[in-house]
Amino acid sequence: MPGSEADEFAIIARYFAPLATHAGARGLLDDAALIAPDGPVVVTTDAIVEGVHFLRGDSLDLVARKALRVNLSDLAAKGAAPFGYLLTLFWPSDRPAHEMAALAAGLAADQEEFALALLGGDTVSTPGPLALSVTMMGRAGLRTPSRAGAKAGDGLWVTGTIGDSGLGLAALRGEAFDAADGDYLAGRYHLPLPRVALGPAIANVASAAMDVSDGLIADAAKLAAAAAVRIEIDLDALPLSPAAARWAERQADRLTARSQLAAFGDDYEILFTAPAAPGIAATRIGQVQAGTGVSLLGGGRQVTAPPAAGYVHRIGR
Amino acid sequence: MPGSEADEFAIIARYFAPLATHAGARGLLDDAALIAPDGPVVVTTDAIVEGVHFLRGDSLDLVARKALRVNLSDLAAKGAAPFGYLLTLFWPSDRPAHEMAALAAGLAADQEEFALALLGGDTVSTPGPLALSVTMMGRAGLRTPSRAGAKAGDGLWVTGTIGDSGLGLAALRGEAFDAADGDYLAGRYHLPLPRVALGPAIANVASAAMDVSDGLIADAAKLAAAAAVRIEIDLDALPLSPAAARWAERQADRLTARSQLAAFGDDYEILFTAPAAPGIAATRIGQVQAGTGVSLLGGGRQVTAPPAAGYVHRIGR
Repeated sequence: MPGSEADEFAIIARYFAPLATHAGARGLLDDAALIAPDGPVVVTTDAIVEGVHFLRGDSLDLVARKALRVNLSDLAAKGAAPFGYLLTLFWPSDRPAHEMAALAAGLAADQEEFALALLGGDTVSTPGPLALSVTMMGRAGLRTPSRAGAKAGDGLWVTGTIGDSGLGLAALRGEAFDAADGDYLAGRYHLPLPRVALGPAIANVASAAMDVSDGLIADAAKLAAAAAVRIEIDLDALPLSPAAARWAERQADRLTARSQLAAFGDDYEILFTAPAAPGIAATRIGQVQAGTGVSLLGGGRQVTAPPAAGYVHRIGR
Repeated sequence: MPGSEADEFAIIARYFAPLATHAGARGLLDDAALIAPDGPVVVTTDAIVEGVHFLRGDSLDLVARKALRVNLSDLAAKGAAPFGYLLTLFWPSDRPAHEMAALAAGLAADQEEFALALLGGDTVSTPGPLALSVTMMGRAGLRTPSRAGAKAGDGLWVTGTIGDSGLGLAALRGEAFDAADGDYLAGRYHLPLPRVALGPAIANVASAAMDVSDGLIADAAKLAAAAAVRIEIDLDALPLSPAAARWAERQADRLTARSQLAAFGDDYEILFTAPAAPGIAATRIGQVQAGTGVSLLGGGRQVTAPPAAGYVHRIGR
């Protein structure tokens, strides 16, 4: 805890107690929260670390929202309706406590946007980097698709667009973009858009589902491995934002550019397989076959996957 | 994640998947766990950081068990029956992955001892110190006492003995103890004994309850503040282990020694108030009165609280 025990109480009272809007959280005055779910619960946990998952100097408002959203994305892919979370905050001992105000404001904004309540937490002082660990809970839907249900013959779909966040990180590192495109892409890096609203509808039709966080190719490989099937991704079908499409057009090789976009991480879209067209705002990008692994198609031919698949979002690498 | 994505899978498969004994954890192959509680759930989260809450060089087996036990202690004080947990592991990027074996062994030992299952988790690479954040869930009992229920006239009780862990830390730092006493006390520091078995019985009779983690005096002050009452602690009634009693006898002033023991942290006993003798293996150490704050009695007189109350377990201070 920064400073003293008195500070701990002041910090909780000032920044976090107003976020504990669930009665069972008891205003964070207790050591535990009491929840009474009316059915099965889906629970997930994901952490982000300064210098690894976000950049030193990133606004703490955005960092807080990202910490929530990477977890919301996991619940969305399982078709769950998020209701609350616990937050462990590792606060650098040399960072002034007043900077928590921005962090709390970010949490408050996303609590409002996603109908969440803070259920509990812990704030500990660390000699290391700022880090946030979130445990997010949601009401399960009628179905909770696993990663393992893909069957040969299923189609492969993804929500939204792919590669924006990776390009956003490149823009933040100084790669040249048209100003509006650079802002858009950086925004996609800083603030994922978890598909919470689409999740339940996808869960009802998907044979397998997961969120895209390590990159489309790497995550498709997980779906393939979990079900012992082969997944074929058609790079020509990859859904791109206008900004990403403009970037791809500027690259020397169109298919290399598309395979790079499919290797970037931090998309936080839902990747799923289904036996029939799902009637959902998603793009069909491939199919499930007998076999193992992931294959990439472009212009009707096999394309080699880029070596960096799945790593781009790890800043530290 | 240390190394590569392939390592991440290997690490999960090797060290953590065997701990995911709850069917809803899906062998940690998914991004979320599905649980179907048969009633209200109590949930808590607590983190420990190397150099702050445990010592550099501490056995990772013991570190892992401590991370679970500080959370089990919170649930015990609420009378809940723990069933599962999520673990976020912040693993220093320069620490070899094979050292996770000892950590996993510690988790396995306590899963067995406390009938727990690993429900999910995240392992992230950090340039900072080793840290573990645990979210622990338990089935609520018939009553879930808060911190806020103490009433003037109630008695104050505590389980077990007080001050051992703080003396254990002193022993580990080189303070001289008889060898057997030093070992006993260091063991109490390294491996808390959460009162999981006593918790439900206490919850049924307590007007307020919490676990003692920041020190008896500091935590009693929290009970007093939460209920707007005064808590009087009789230092002469403080339950001491034989090792702590021998230490106290060697000190120049008996009451100063006892107030130091009551200021140490990391006891992980249950402190509770109740209107009548609870019929539980616990020691009556004081009473609840009208007023505010905590007062200490010794030899029938008021004693001044030591200035360090509540901080001793923060190694970094």
